[in-house]
Amino acid sequence: MALIIQKFGGTSVADVDRIKQAALRTKAEVDAGHQVVVVVSAMAGVTNELVGYTDQLGTHSDAREYDVVVSSGEQSNAGLMALALQNLGIQARSWLGWQIPIRTDDRHGKARISGIDTKNLVNRLEADEIAVVPGFQGMDPYNRVTTLGRGGSDLTAVALAGALRADCCDIYTDVDGVYTTDPRIVPNARRMKKIAFEEMLEMASMGSKVLQLRSVEFAGKYSVPLRVLSSFKEGPGTLISMDEDNVMEAPTIAGIAFNRDEARVVVRGVPDTPGVAYKVIGPVSDANIEVDVIVQNVAADGTTDLTFTVHRNDISKAKTITETVASDLNARDVAIDENICKVSLVGVGMRSHAGIASQMFKTLADVGINIELITTSEIKISVVIEEKFMELAVRSLHSAFGLDAEAT
Amino acid sequence: MALIIQKFGGTSVADVDRIKQAALRTKAEVDAGHQVVVVVSAMAGVTNELVGYTDQLGTHSDAREYDVVVSSGEQSNAGLMALALQNLGIQARSWLGWQIPIRTDDRHGKARISGIDTKNLVNRLEADEIAVVPGFQGMDPYNRVTTLGRGGSDLTAVALAGALRADCCDIYTDVDGVYTTDPRIVPNARRMKKIAFEEMLEMASMGSKVLQLRSVEFAGKYSVPLRVLSSFKEGPGTLISMDEDNVMEAPTIAGIAFNRDEARVVVRGVPDTPGVAYKVIGPVSDANIEVDVIVQNVAADGTTDLTFTVHRNDISKAKTITETVASDLNARDVAIDENICKVSLVGVGMRSHAGIASQMFKTLADVGINIELITTSEIKISVVIEEKFMELAVRSLHSAFGLDAEAT
Repeated sequence: MALIIQKFGGTSVADVDRIKQAALRTKAEVDAGHQVVVVVSAMAGVTNELVGYTDQLGTHSDAREYDVVVSSGEQSNAGLMALALQNLGIQARSWLGWQIPIRTDDRHGKARISGIDTKNLVNRLEADEIAVVPGFQGMDPYNRVTTLGRGGSDLTAVALAGALRADCCDIYTDVDGVYTTDPRIVPNARRMKKIAFEEMLEMASMGSKVLQLRSVEFAGKYSVPLRVLSSFKEGPGTLISMDEDNVMEAPTIAGIAFNRDEARVVVRGVPDTPGVAYKVIGPVSDANIEVDVIVQNVAADGTTDLTFTVHRNDISKAKTITETVASDLNARDVAIDENICKVSLVGVGMRSHAGIASQMFKTLADVGINIELITTSEIKISVVIEEKFMELAVRSLHSAFGLDAEAT
Repeated sequence: MALIIQKFGGTSVADVDRIKQAALRTKAEVDAGHQVVVVVSAMAGVTNELVGYTDQLGTHSDAREYDVVVSSGEQSNAGLMALALQNLGIQARSWLGWQIPIRTDDRHGKARISGIDTKNLVNRLEADEIAVVPGFQGMDPYNRVTTLGRGGSDLTAVALAGALRADCCDIYTDVDGVYTTDPRIVPNARRMKKIAFEEMLEMASMGSKVLQLRSVEFAGKYSVPLRVLSSFKEGPGTLISMDEDNVMEAPTIAGIAFNRDEARVVVRGVPDTPGVAYKVIGPVSDANIEVDVIVQNVAADGTTDLTFTVHRNDISKAKTITETVASDLNARDVAIDENICKVSLVGVGMRSHAGIASQMFKTLADVGINIELITTSEIKISVVIEEKFMELAVRSLHSAFGLDAEAT
């Protein structure tokens, strides 16, 4: 007998029929003799609708009340899922965030989980009752409802898995696993049977929307075995594994991530003195703009070029700040480019294999793509290129690194 | 300074714009120096939608989970109302049923309030903070969410008014008060400035949908002064008054209620022996069918006719049961009539005025309407007539008893 957490995303519980389908997946685990905790999202679209209502009431909303509003979609789905399970002859009850409770801090709208009292939950699980928990919600130290930020239902599932020492945390979604890259770009992208945690972290942070980044981090920290599966299609999904030995036998490159949400800022001709990077990046960070890639070239004529990327939504704010700084620093000028994208090779195998970077650069050169920026980490190599070459780059790399699925 | 409970019904908070409008009514009371507790319904239609979801999951639903689902509409509106008040510069926060808490028994779906802890609420009110409470919801002894039955938000408002010893409980709805009868039937029906509690009870129990019956009972029991007002139109509304002296000066007849939801069952030729009424009505009640009017005529030839009315939805069930009983009792037969309606004169003034009944019967006779059944209480006279005469009866009585508004 195992304890399994099943989390169903918004498309998997988008209406009553889909909730019934999801309940059948729970029944299968119950019939196999397992204890199950089900975590549900709101029906697809409902949270956006509720957020829309709060938006109509102004941007300076009290986040405590925002949380009361937006947490209601998961609440009703938890009740509906419990009813659907009961209809299948399964003992089930809903546990709202405050009933368990799932304790959080009071950063409303993006609260962090501080602890989960599992005693009551465990007692009922041991009495063969399935627990249904609305995702995304918790309770702060003042007994007010909190929410965990968008995608927070994944986090609820992973946190419960950690607190209950679950054997597995299955994330049911509208795709049947994690792919070597986005199948919309590369039609013969392959579903991975397994991916290492660190790889998944890189994939998640670079645009693979399958799992929320924080939940992958959390799962890694608490050693929760995660699985991504489809609600709509049978299959084993993708296991996100902590067992490195096992993963090391996987191919060198696990997958290719990309995103086109970034824009590039280049501060040209900055006098190359100590602290220059801090003087440029500091004010940008202070304005709560997240900076992704940062590259500083070696100085040539006593000046250097400092390049960084930010989310496109932040580019005009970043430009204004940077121009002021550039002027203070006597830099030559500031250049902005919004037509860029970032493509990354991800794989823990990279650590023990030389030549990945050069093979990547050669592949791109062969198809005539110019690389504008390069950054590397132990398990990934990212390049920034012109946006129009994105599909070509992803497809060429996918094929060059042997990721294409065999024709079936 | 007074403490005022304001309750806004589903049409008054049907979207964000209307919530903003409702918030202005709260602001007016705050600006006048009053403490206010706001009770909100779900957006019009939302509760029906949620109930619809549970219906899709079968009729034998666990009422505890039903409550988790259907209480969510009031929850999100409480948050939205708090935000709307804050936008007007008013300190406000939402208090969910479990946060106050509003304690109830565990009859889920139709729970009864057992107590309200007012300490925290009072502290915050005294710190000039407006409380926004979702109607319809409470918490059972096992910390599960309960709901109070349809129309339960009125009850939440009245119960809070009682527990907090509020000076007034204002029920904002889509009509501007209680009328002498339904203005759709009698265009010159008059809004009453005042109505006695007992009259309102009779009006509510006989089809006037303005206030939920249980909340009127509750308001009477705890001496809560109730007022019915429109959210959409300025005006003093109708005061539901406990001050009998005051009301006694009102006209003899307060209003005319009617309903066409009933059907009539006549068991003819029942041997007139003791206990016959019990033997007929007992099995009907045992089947959870609510019986309204019961009339037994004096026996003539050793047999009697026993007549009763039930809701039309229950008529086929009532017929089956009654036919079995009639056969056991050797009654002649059972006759069903679904084309009936009930029209009632209501007024506490009736107690001290003779001749109301005969004036009623004469008025109906003058327009050729045959009365099939008559029942009376201290403050009302009801007649059952053919359904097709309903409008005619109501209009004739409205005019004959001087209720018509003067032309304006």
